[in-house]
Amino acid sequence: MPSLDYPPPLQRLIAHIKSLPGLGPRSAERLVLWLLQSQGRVEPLVDALMAVSERVHACDQCGFFIERDEDCVLCHSTKRNHQIICVVEQAADVLRLERSGAFGGVYHVLGGKLSPLDNVTPEDLRIEPLLERVKAQQVDEVILAVGSDVEGEATASYLSEMLRTEGIAVSRLAQGMPAGGGLDHVDELTLYQAMHGRRRL
Amino acid sequence: MPSLDYPPPLQRLIAHIKSLPGLGPRSAERLVLWLLQSQGRVEPLVDALMAVSERVHACDQCGFFIERDEDCVLCHSTKRNHQIICVVEQAADVLRLERSGAFGGVYHVLGGKLSPLDNVTPEDLRIEPLLERVKAQQVDEVILAVGSDVEGEATASYLSEMLRTEGIAVSRLAQGMPAGGGLDHVDELTLYQAMHGRRRL
Repeated sequence: MPSLDYPPPLQRLIAHIKSLPGLGPRSAERLVLWLLQSQGRVEPLVDALMAVSERVHACDQCGFFIERDEDCVLCHSTKRNHQIICVVEQAADVLRLERSGAFGGVYHVLGGKLSPLDNVTPEDLRIEPLLERVKAQQVDEVILAVGSDVEGEATASYLSEMLRTEGIAVSRLAQGMPAGGGLDHVDELTLYQAMHGRRRL
Repeated sequence: MPSLDYPPPLQRLIAHIKSLPGLGPRSAERLVLWLLQSQGRVEPLVDALMAVSERVHACDQCGFFIERDEDCVLCHSTKRNHQIICVVEQAADVLRLERSGAFGGVYHVLGGKLSPLDNVTPEDLRIEPLLERVKAQQVDEVILAVGSDVEGEATASYLSEMLRTEGIAVSRLAQGMPAGGGLDHVDELTLYQAMHGRRRL
């Protein structure tokens, strides 16, 4: 007697869900069984996925998401400073920076960071469109707001080299103490960076 | 200036994914952005969901999943003992018991457990079909393989009362020490149950 398993379509769905980021075998199984527990749980999810697939795409210029037939609220804003471009890894980073209220320029989403171990090369990121952008329009400064991990640093130094060749001022987000935290909550490298980047009062 | 957010279809998809069990706001956002990061990630997921929605449903008798137009491999098996019914909470429990190899009878999936706090009453579970089943065919024993938490105990005592009225022998899975574990890994209640249910060698 072959060992019992779910019907093939169910096995395939569990395998698919399991392959999504943040979901393991157990949570995938629990999620799929939950979807099947009552009628009408699958269709709204399918509809929401289809709506995004059909109506949402990335802005050709900045890479943030826009709805079909609509202008990018960032790139077409007359209230933003189009001479300063802030480069981020992901679209979600744009929202984080917007919520901080610290930036009034425009954005450029790379779509990741350089990582030879994961086969992410400059061609996989939106680096060429960034260079075309700074050549085509007058840009005073490019702020590299990528992460401060190894891949982020590599991406930042690669970009800063390319942009400086074009004569563009390049800057990087400051590293240092998190707001509201004491020295006991900060790792040594961050403390080193905070000391190194200290500001005279 | 209204604060920036994702386009509405994307917000709706994130809200929907967030409402699924096991996914929080951050993991939902990460998952959705991952789906959008490359072309062709949404469609296979939609296809897998649609295939399950269209082709998989619960067996009318036991409640385990079957593929459309196919017989239930459990209820139609000639190699299983149809006089012993094992009652479980979820379809996933059927697979767990099958993997243990400890049971050769047939199953009955309740679809949950009694829980007044969550508004789960006997009408919400497949209890009526269970009673019809034991009345319609000759059943020697019903094994209650529901959980040993408060709701599981309540469900078990409710079912055992109903089934005994029908003159059916009812049993419950043994509680005790987990296989391969020492006393230091067992909580006090389990230890109490293990002592209480000790077997003479």
